[in-house]
Amino acid sequence: MTLPLLRLTLLATGMAMASMTVAADGASPAAPPAAAKPARQEIRVTKVTPAYWRVTLDNPPFNIFGPETIPQLNAVITDLENDPNVKVVVFESDVPGFFMTHFNFIPPLSDTTSMPVGRTGLPPLPDMLVRLSKAHVVSIAKIRGRATGVGSELALASDMRFASREKAILSHFEVGAGFTPGGGPMARLPRLMGRGRALEVVLGGDDIDGDIAERYGYVNRSLPDAQLDAFVDTLARRIAGFDKQTLGDIKDRVNIASLPPDSELGGEWASFITSVQRPAAQQRIGELMKLGLQKNADIETHLGKVVGQLGEGKP
Amino acid sequence: MTLPLLRLTLLATGMAMASMTVAADGASPAAPPAAAKPARQEIRVTKVTPAYWRVTLDNPPFNIFGPETIPQLNAVITDLENDPNVKVVVFESDVPGFFMTHFNFIPPLSDTTSMPVGRTGLPPLPDMLVRLSKAHVVSIAKIRGRATGVGSELALASDMRFASREKAILSHFEVGAGFTPGGGPMARLPRLMGRGRALEVVLGGDDIDGDIAERYGYVNRSLPDAQLDAFVDTLARRIAGFDKQTLGDIKDRVNIASLPPDSELGGEWASFITSVQRPAAQQRIGELMKLGLQKNADIETHLGKVVGQLGEGKP
Amino acid sequence: MTLPLLRLTLLATGMAMASMTVAADGASPAAPPAAAKPARQEIRVTKVTPAYWRVTLDNPPFNIFGPETIPQLNAVITDLENDPNVKVVVFESDVPGFFMTHFNFIPPLSDTTSMPVGRTGLPPLPDMLVRLSKAHVVSIAKIRGRATGVGSELALASDMRFASREKAILSHFEVGAGFTPGGGPMARLPRLMGRGRALEVVLGGDDIDGDIAERYGYVNRSLPDAQLDAFVDTLARRIAGFDKQTLGDIKDRVNIASLPPDSELGGEWASFITSVQRPAAQQRIGELMKLGLQKNADIETHLGKVVGQLGEGKP
Repeated sequence: MTLPLLRLTLLATGMAMASMTVAADGASPAAPPAAAKPARQEIRVTKVTPAYWRVTLDNPPFNIFGPETIPQLNAVITDLENDPNVKVVVFESDVPGFFMTHFNFIPPLSDTTSMPVGRTGLPPLPDMLVRLSKAHVVSIAKIRGRATGVGSELALASDMRFASREKAILSHFEVGAGFTPGGGPMARLPRLMGRGRALEVVLGGDDIDGDIAERYGYVNRSLPDAQLDAFVDTLARRIAGFDKQTLGDIKDRVNIASLPPDSELGGEWASFITSVQRPAAQQRIGELMKLGLQKNADIETHLGKVVGQLGEGKP
Repeated sequence: MTLPLLRLTLLATGMAMASMTVAADGASPAAPPAAAKPARQEIRVTKVTPAYWRVTLDNPPFNIFGPETIPQLNAVITDLENDPNVKVVVFESDVPGFFMTHFNFIPPLSDTTSMPVGRTGLPPLPDMLVRLSKAHVVSIAKIRGRATGVGSELALASDMRFASREKAILSHFEVGAGFTPGGGPMARLPRLMGRGRALEVVLGGDDIDGDIAERYGYVNRSLPDAQLDAFVDTLARRIAGFDKQTLGDIKDRVNIASLPPDSELGGEWASFITSVQRPAAQQRIGELMKLGLQKNADIETHLGKVVGQLGEGKP
Repeated sequence: MTLPLLRLTLLATGMAMASMTVAADGASPAAPPAAAKPARQEIRVTKVTPAYWRVTLDNPPFNIFGPETIPQLNAVITDLENDPNVKVVVFESDVPGFFMTHFNFIPPLSDTTSMPVGRTGLPPLPDMLVRLSKAHVVSIAKIRGRATGVGSELALASDMRFASREKAILSHFEVGAGFTPGGGPMARLPRLMGRGRALEVVLGGDDIDGDIAERYGYVNRSLPDAQLDAFVDTLARRIAGFDKQTLGDIKDRVNIASLPPDSELGGEWASFITSVQRPAAQQRIGELMKLGLQKNADIETHLGKVVGQLGEGKP
């Protein structure tokens, strides 16, 4: 299914999510993986040193995350879990303007829901994110450009977040598209920034710039864009010189005090799967697709504003 | 019982709380509501649109919250819970200098403690505040002027708080009056700003201005006073355009991660009821009343400073 | 065992921790206290008023905390628990450049692990820190100079922390020395500043200055050094004028909402005791001692930088 063809279909039917129906409950362990045909490699791993890896998100033009990305990210996280030498990993983007953005709305939802649950017993996306948080590897999200939806969720599952003061945007626009986020922000944001600011992020659905992200604790720090790379690289090399077992032991203990229970993350994913199939979501996603979501850089770049305008005049 | 008469009595007896005795335990479900005579309407609801309501606190000169306010606020919160259209509510004040301040010390405590418990099983004030936090309506406190005691508690029970940088004061002065707060700050503040800053607020009992309130996370943001109304109105209209069920679902999940258990709020209320009847409270409240609490704008406006001076020379 | 002699031994053997072996598990209640010979008084108590005490840390040149300090701090905390008049205590240092720094690496570890558990059932250091957090006395850490390791842990166990903007450094360097902290930061920091910033502190192991400490919520506020003493003194005198029972009641309720369970602190201590005996720790502590740890002001003052350089070139 090519993008232009789908887009024409959307314009004709006015219903973007016609194909987004699910036969089963989305967590059936027996279901086979959906993505049978080989997908373009959207994630690259560079071993800067044996102890310091870089994971580059490279799915232009917007770093959209789709069901085809799931096994690719899963492979990276599995390698991080199993490699005896890696101590620190930096997630970064090679796509200008985008760290990583929202889930791909074009493939049928069943491509995602038919995938088997992961090692934690959670469906693949929350499974991978939980495993990243628990891995005995220190993960740092270096955020330049937009970290929306799944992009924000990957950043939140990482151990630390550093943002470009001028070029980072973090957000959860999902509420404006009529469905609930699914990859952890309702569980993770309140523990990071308190209930009030977390509710503003997920109920307001608007773009959060580098300054506010730092003030709210959404990121550890926002740095001048020109300093971001050197800062993160210095920190990563520093950590790579420490003892791997000590790093893992310390992370384990912080996790006891701070990680949400897996059940909260599972419940959040279930809420996403349910809500995204409701008429409110189907209609709003359809409207967004007609406006050019996943095609038009203007729409993707101003997603916070766009979902706000979508609601205008709605009762 | 008129205010001047009581004030004379206070001056004569030097004991403000003489009438503040409680026969029962304050949570007797069988007890009838106390406020039998009609009270002035202190809370106004304006439906800006069917989805966007404004609740105006209007009990001049200080927006003191008394037992007579409880059924009025309860009616508003019940409407918010039951109305099928409302999605967002803004709490604001029409009284210059005061968002809402402390509990009314003039009526006998039994006016409050004789009220039946609410739907949650908690006494009326914590019951209403818990229900506001759980309602499928997004609540925003717009704080201009003093949010002290119950005023701060109403703000903390709301989903978000935005403050006037120049004109907002948040505080819990109760420790300085010899009793413990009762409407949630000990449960809610540590989850919002961490233990250290929460302890500073409730053990220091001093005024917190807009700058520090933002830095501590007591409010989401403090905005220049001239921008506050437009900012909150824009956010409220934005949220009013979103899907009601989605807003409620998201709030539910954030609440799982962030709301204190009801039992903590119940325990806090019990601690207030017990402590306010002790000699230390009776004496300090008496001294405050003699100084002009609930009468003198200077005292109400400088409550942080006043309770500090009250303690000077005390062992 | 004099310091110069030990230092020569270290240079000769290249193994600082040769004597750091433990026969028992460190939590044996039957074991007798280790420090039999009288130690220099490293902690002074000044009763500014009966309600307001000052605890001065005075172990020059670096305010290193050793097994001999444990009974001294324990005596102070026991007095704070039992005195009927004290309401507020300020912890401060008389040693320029150091609030309090890390544990003493020279005495054999068994000096520490042979001490009987405390009243909470925890080993002495976590026992004392837990008791300080739970005491019905308001504790304020006034941080000027370096609060590293145990120094940070004492500050984190206190109810509030105020820092000199120019002269305070907070840090947990332990990861860089190959072992995990033991006195609470993995349990306390995430609850204070969120998981991401907490992980940066304990996994990065670097110095945190007054500005970042305030931004992260590591301290309540950082104040210009010239204002710090007056600010803390004013706050302490204010609190000393309040009612002691009210202060205790309020603290109890905030503790319900915010203190980590004792078991987390016990687990953290066990992790420290285990990790500090591993080869990675023994080697790195040995290297640090050879560089001049506990002797050379340059090393103690730049501990964050030094442990970073230690890791350079390590796989």
